[in-house]
Amino acid sequence: MRMYDMIYKKREGQELTQEEINFFINQYTEGSIPDYQVSAMLMAIYFRGMSKKETYYLTEAMRFSGDVIDLSEIEGIKVDKHSTGGVGDTTTLVVGPLVASCGVPVAKMSGRGLGHTGGTIDKLESIPGFHVELSIEQFIHTVNRVKLAVVGQSGHLAPADKKLYALRDVTATVDNIELIASSIMSKKLAAGSNAIILDVKIGNGAFMKTLDEGIKLAKEMVNIGNYANRETIALLTSMEQPLGNAVGNALEVKEAIDTLNNNGPEDLEELCIHLASYMLLMSKKTNSIDEGIKITTQKLKSGEAFAKFKEFIQAQGGDISVIDDTTKLPQAKYITKIKSISAGYIQGIKTNEIGLAALTLGAGRENKAASIDLSAGLQMHKKIGDQVSIGDTIATIHTNKKESIEQACNMILNALEFSKGSIPKPKLIQAIVSKDEIKIL
Amino acid sequence: MRMYDMIYKKREGQELTQEEINFFINQYTEGSIPDYQVSAMLMAIYFRGMSKKETYYLTEAMRFSGDVIDLSEIEGIKVDKHSTGGVGDTTTLVVGPLVASCGVPVAKMSGRGLGHTGGTIDKLESIPGFHVELSIEQFIHTVNRVKLAVVGQSGHLAPADKKLYALRDVTATVDNIELIASSIMSKKLAAGSNAIILDVKIGNGAFMKTLDEGIKLAKEMVNIGNYANRETIALLTSMEQPLGNAVGNALEVKEAIDTLNNNGPEDLEELCIHLASYMLLMSKKTNSIDEGIKITTQKLKSGEAFAKFKEFIQAQGGDISVIDDTTKLPQAKYITKIKSISAGYIQGIKTNEIGLAALTLGAGRENKAASIDLSAGLQMHKKIGDQVSIGDTIATIHTNKKESIEQACNMILNALEFSKGSIPKPKLIQAIVSKDEIKIL
Repeated sequence: MRMYDMIYKKREGQELTQEEINFFINQYTEGSIPDYQVSAMLMAIYFRGMSKKETYYLTEAMRFSGDVIDLSEIEGIKVDKHSTGGVGDTTTLVVGPLVASCGVPVAKMSGRGLGHTGGTIDKLESIPGFHVELSIEQFIHTVNRVKLAVVGQSGHLAPADKKLYALRDVTATVDNIELIASSIMSKKLAAGSNAIILDVKIGNGAFMKTLDEGIKLAKEMVNIGNYANRETIALLTSMEQPLGNAVGNALEVKEAIDTLNNNGPEDLEELCIHLASYMLLMSKKTNSIDEGIKITTQKLKSGEAFAKFKEFIQAQGGDISVIDDTTKLPQAKYITKIKSISAGYIQGIKTNEIGLAALTLGAGRENKAASIDLSAGLQMHKKIGDQVSIGDTIATIHTNKKESIEQACNMILNALEFSKGSIPKPKLIQAIVSKDEIKIL
Repeated sequence: MRMYDMIYKKREGQELTQEEINFFINQYTEGSIPDYQVSAMLMAIYFRGMSKKETYYLTEAMRFSGDVIDLSEIEGIKVDKHSTGGVGDTTTLVVGPLVASCGVPVAKMSGRGLGHTGGTIDKLESIPGFHVELSIEQFIHTVNRVKLAVVGQSGHLAPADKKLYALRDVTATVDNIELIASSIMSKKLAAGSNAIILDVKIGNGAFMKTLDEGIKLAKEMVNIGNYANRETIALLTSMEQPLGNAVGNALEVKEAIDTLNNNGPEDLEELCIHLASYMLLMSKKTNSIDEGIKITTQKLKSGEAFAKFKEFIQAQGGDISVIDDTTKLPQAKYITKIKSISAGYIQGIKTNEIGLAALTLGAGRENKAASIDLSAGLQMHKKIGDQVSIGDTIATIHTNKKESIEQACNMILNALEFSKGSIPKPKLIQAIVSKDEIKIL
């Protein structure tokens, strides 16, 4: 078997066999196929696409290229959750305790972020003492005891994906639906859960700009999950504006705590309740989404989800006094309110620009080696459909970089589009993709 | 300027600027752009193609990546000749002395071959004492004195093309018309002649299989030449059977000598006379092709071309007694006649198979490091349209590898297709592509 022949085959639009894909991924991971042949292959895949079978074989080859986590010692059906990423996406910190408070185990592996803000792991590290380095045994033990644990992703989870992604990143071959789907799913499958709920973000703050594109990606991932005998469902959710109000690590932790205290933004609560309800359904805890919504709403109202959050933070060494007094979270030196210079109804928000403003303020990493300012970020006080008068506070920015304030302020002001007439609130959950159907809401 | 952005741009089907192409080629040649980005770019070019301008800019960037030969000290208009390669292509050894005998300078740089047989340089080395390593000064001096010299291609001629070609060769991105055209033309332009005659081979023994494909390639190369202010004309010539009868280094030298002695194969003589006539026209020696055909035919008949060949061989140190007695050329140990096992008219010859048979016998290099057996090869005694009876000798094979005889014999027999009815001789010169017209003959 020669890599050259596979590149040629793919270039000619022919289907690669499972043996060929395994050869390619295994030999590449161990370094016996050079980057330059793989990047030619990736570009050929970009133009020719991959069949459902090829996409599945690629996913499986990457899944088995490193550690495959065995969660069978955790009692019950484990449902993993994955978001394709957007601006202000704090759901894991709410959904985790919410599902766990219903008695369903949540064993979550998360990554660090390379984007507008940090990842879930970075966010949790805003809480003093919280640690994410558990051994697999400790991880399993904690989930069995608390029903919830969040750990950093093993460095040896799907190393083929890591290597391939780094190459895609420098050869303009990232934005291919099949490659994205197999990259995400290889890690989810290696992480060992029994079922997977996907939150596929769509809109100007997400990688997928339209519902159509989002559905294509969702279908690919649901297909892979089903080929691999893992029930997989995808919610397509709007990223036409930041989710919730906060963008930034400690600010999002505070917002998650507020939400668990029944005091969070409406859209964040709505999405968390839906994601949690799907997880209850997929873990066979409930028989319908409506039943799940009833139960999770009640768990939020009763404070049980909040209590579960505290228990989880404590179990991983975090200082729980922070949860009752969020002023103990990292605080930025400069906190500035931004006043509107326009009047009208907010018609659109350039969400990606809001994310970049947060990055400018210090909330994210500009590159892998960069450090992150956990206290930095911003809070949006207005959303699409809100009426705004000149002088109204539309956002608050938090930073330790005084020199970034003016630029971030301009970015936020420029990100807003106004209309004279009233504008309806956008729909948050737009479609659901499961094995058997695509339901547009 | 970032290579990433250029890959993306090309992937999206946009046109690269001259600055971008120069950056890409210069940085790649000096090693600051990695192979893996260039191979992704090459595959994107494969799918998206290049505009006429981009193809020209790429050619020029490669042309100026190394030595650019200045032939201005050679008197007269220098016309270079290039063949895209086929089986049994001995034209340079005939055309060179033929044109020189008309008083037109021929300053030829040739490569070594990596194919069924060696290149012109390898062939000439069949003549004891002949040496191809002349300094530029010696080269120019020899052409001014003899009107003809053939030297090995400078190692530093279009190094960007060398590096790019090596990468294309292992990433399935060789067979793209624009990349082929720019690769050939970058070297031709760097080699310093004033005009270029191209012999674009078409058919089952050539890279381009059909007249259509050949014309596309010819048009690209003629365009590049004209952009660069070098008159360029392409003849499209048949490679549906080996050119002449001989395939192999010393065997082709013998055939060239026979042709210069008015005793060569008809098709080889016809093509050489036409190529030479175009060279005379382009060098302003004549005003029409017909005039050139008259002159060159006379120079062949009179023995002046043969005398020029001797003078040329002697000027580069070769033993000219070999020319009068070709049995002094390298001789193979095993010479075997192959008898036909079929009867009828030869309808087709799998020309590539004939080339591979010669390679099997030792005539070519299987890889760059391999040595070549100058004595090895084969002679075809029958051509398309010839009538053959069972037992007729159809070919003679020459080899020092006894073990290769049976395989080569089978390859040759399998390469022939017979018809019961008579078959017309195929047309040798099928089309002419110049700046202003495409003439199908």
